[in-house]
Amino acid sequence: MKQTVWHNLKLCATGDARHTLDDAAIAVEGGRIAWLGAAPNLPAQYALWPREDLRGAWVTPGLVDCHTHLVYAGQRADEFAQRLAGASYEEIARQGGGIVSTVRATRAASEEALFAQSAARLEPLIAEGVTAVEIKSGYGLELDAERKMLRVARQLGERYPVTVRTTFLGAHALPPEFAGRADDYVEEVCDRMLPALADEGLVDAVDVFCERIGFTLAQSERVFEVAVRRNLPVKMHAEQLSNGGGAALAARYGALSSDHLEFLDEAGVAAMKAAGSVAVLLPGAYYFIRETQLPPLDLLRRYEVPIAISTDSNPGTSPVTSLLLMMNMATTLFRMTVPEVLLGVTRNAARAFGDAEHHGTLAAGRPADFAVWRVQSLAELAYWIGRPLCERVVRGGATVFQRSLTA
Amino acid sequence: MKQTVWHNLKLCATGDARHTLDDAAIAVEGGRIAWLGAAPNLPAQYALWPREDLRGAWVTPGLVDCHTHLVYAGQRADEFAQRLAGASYEEIARQGGGIVSTVRATRAASEEALFAQSAARLEPLIAEGVTAVEIKSGYGLELDAERKMLRVARQLGERYPVTVRTTFLGAHALPPEFAGRADDYVEEVCDRMLPALADEGLVDAVDVFCERIGFTLAQSERVFEVAVRRNLPVKMHAEQLSNGGGAALAARYGALSSDHLEFLDEAGVAAMKAAGSVAVLLPGAYYFIRETQLPPLDLLRRYEVPIAISTDSNPGTSPVTSLLLMMNMATTLFRMTVPEVLLGVTRNAARAFGDAEHHGTLAAGRPADFAVWRVQSLAELAYWIGRPLCERVVRGGATVFQRSLTA
Ligand SMILES: [Zn+2]
Ligand SMILES: [Zn+2]
Repeated sequence: MKQTVWHNLKLCATGDARHTLDDAAIAVEGGRIAWLGAAPNLPAQYALWPREDLRGAWVTPGLVDCHTHLVYAGQRADEFAQRLAGASYEEIARQGGGIVSTVRATRAASEEALFAQSAARLEPLIAEGVTAVEIKSGYGLELDAERKMLRVARQLGERYPVTVRTTFLGAHALPPEFAGRADDYVEEVCDRMLPALADEGLVDAVDVFCERIGFTLAQSERVFEVAVRRNLPVKMHAEQLSNGGGAALAARYGALSSDHLEFLDEAGVAAMKAAGSVAVLLPGAYYFIRETQLPPLDLLRRYEVPIAISTDSNPGTSPVTSLLLMMNMATTLFRMTVPEVLLGVTRNAARAFGDAEHHGTLAAGRPADFAVWRVQSLAELAYWIGRPLCERVVRGGATVFQRSLTA
Repeated sequence: MKQTVWHNLKLCATGDARHTLDDAAIAVEGGRIAWLGAAPNLPAQYALWPREDLRGAWVTPGLVDCHTHLVYAGQRADEFAQRLAGASYEEIARQGGGIVSTVRATRAASEEALFAQSAARLEPLIAEGVTAVEIKSGYGLELDAERKMLRVARQLGERYPVTVRTTFLGAHALPPEFAGRADDYVEEVCDRMLPALADEGLVDAVDVFCERIGFTLAQSERVFEVAVRRNLPVKMHAEQLSNGGGAALAARYGALSSDHLEFLDEAGVAAMKAAGSVAVLLPGAYYFIRETQLPPLDLLRRYEVPIAISTDSNPGTSPVTSLLLMMNMATTLFRMTVPEVLLGVTRNAARAFGDAEHHGTLAAGRPADFAVWRVQSLAELAYWIGRPLCERVVRGGATVFQRSLTA
């Protein structure tokens, strides 16, 4: 088994910027961490292992992007341009724009084309230290196209050095063929799509877009019932545009997370706390749709609800492929602190991701998945805007991405 | 002389997204464009030249970043983190933070260290298609340190494939040793620093930070007088935090541009129009300092003042190294249109840069400086957030940057 001691590094093993080591070492054997700690304390048994000198770089756990829709075909840049030029949502819808256009393109795309287009959005995330990414379905909205999306998500995890967990989001929007028949579509989701896809091993979690323009609490609950019967964890797009009580419902089902949450109230926060749900905040969507209602940070802090940050990478409301930039937006727009946003893309994101055992923190026995940053201070991860900072990504002990950078 | 026909490309030669060619070719000889136009019209004399196939990519002029402070030492990420954690500006100033800390670090840095740190910020701009960048002094605030900054800026232009124009911004802030003696410092700038640096050939333009917290109109005018006597073009940091009349003053001196302009009024817009000054908008600074006063876009449009967009790359208010992201912020935050922001980083930016003869548009006889974009639609340049889109940068006919991308 390959053995390496990574040394001459500064270490933030837990994702908590308040607890760091200035001169650390990490002993890795067979892809797992054998030991980590202050370099002078390196046990004698590792002293003769081959060494990799990180020249004073910072090391954090590999980042976790815990809420993405990055598998889809096409893009909506022209619609974006039209809206800026003054076209109304109605005009764009009449021209076939909006989410319907992404559904149409995703349904029409071959699995190969869908893979290639999605991979192009995954690659910049990996180059920023992301070693785990959640990917949702929800642009197929029919069994075959949802299956195709989830298969592509699985393939991304097989062909790229990143751990993918899939989320079935059949209840993302009402497909055109079910217009006016939302309950019928939810029945299709519950009775046919989810069971089939889960049987095929394509579903790691189940999500619902619960909103006035999405699905009702009752419809969401129907989907959650099916998920829970199959022991699938749930999560929810909740309180993005209005306070509908989605997060509290999701909490009743032990949700991994509720996500967006700009309109979340104190009762919802308390319910999330009681259930251990993570609050996943999505500053890219907040920014892109020019939302002004801020998520209730003070309440989330007061109740000590763990907060994660994610890209929400999607063509309609967050065409984002940089998790570092989301850290900056979470500080600049939401006034989160640097330690909060770093936990938000490591330890807390791993909880929302549904696998905090293997992701989000570094410790003996865990996978050697870490990011190497050519920065003087960890705060730089949130400070710089659009600057490449990740010098190397290590996954299972092997370097899977590298570039030369100056601090 | 090397001859190449670039073909199988979509062309936006003028930076105006409303005038494009879907199947174009560019014949380049000796670093200059010999011919460009619709591929079927390629004159016979170029038919046998060696070919480069761009596989359907979009080509625009090399981008121009016309307002940067990217030469400096250190960074202010820790101060950024402290402010988020609740520290007041006063506390940070007491700890030696703020612009003074950048001045201290820049004065203390060796020319080599200053070069290396600045180069690390220039490289991501080049990787985004930037072939021309303005760089200001203004963190030295004494002759030797200002000289060092300008020398480093010149060296960046020599050692990287990018055209650099330098701007002397001695009147950026009051150095600590002149506290309470702003007029004396302006005298130092006018009588000693600017003449010496201009004599050494280090100054292509002269800028002043005109603001209540910067320099007065009268002080600004003194600097401009010296610049104009030496035939140096002027520009101004104006109306960023208040409406002080700086843009109108700069217009009287035929300024290349006035920059920031959130508080610009109609009289200022009219003066800029009359003088032919470019309005340089800096959405990164607007975003980072959480400004809420929008620049007067409607007035600028009504008076047909050319608008440019730039990074304002600097450690205190815009730690930005992505011009594409500034295009997104100019659309999202300022509601500029896609054609406006593309002109804002090409043709109009080249005017503010002070060399529209060679930059910002592609035409026969001009340098073959262009960016190759792996996108379906030009609107994607403004639409994506944090996604690498530039596949290749060509400068003087030679490929100076390349990476493999999927659309
Ligand atoms: Zn989402
Ligand atoms: Zn500036």
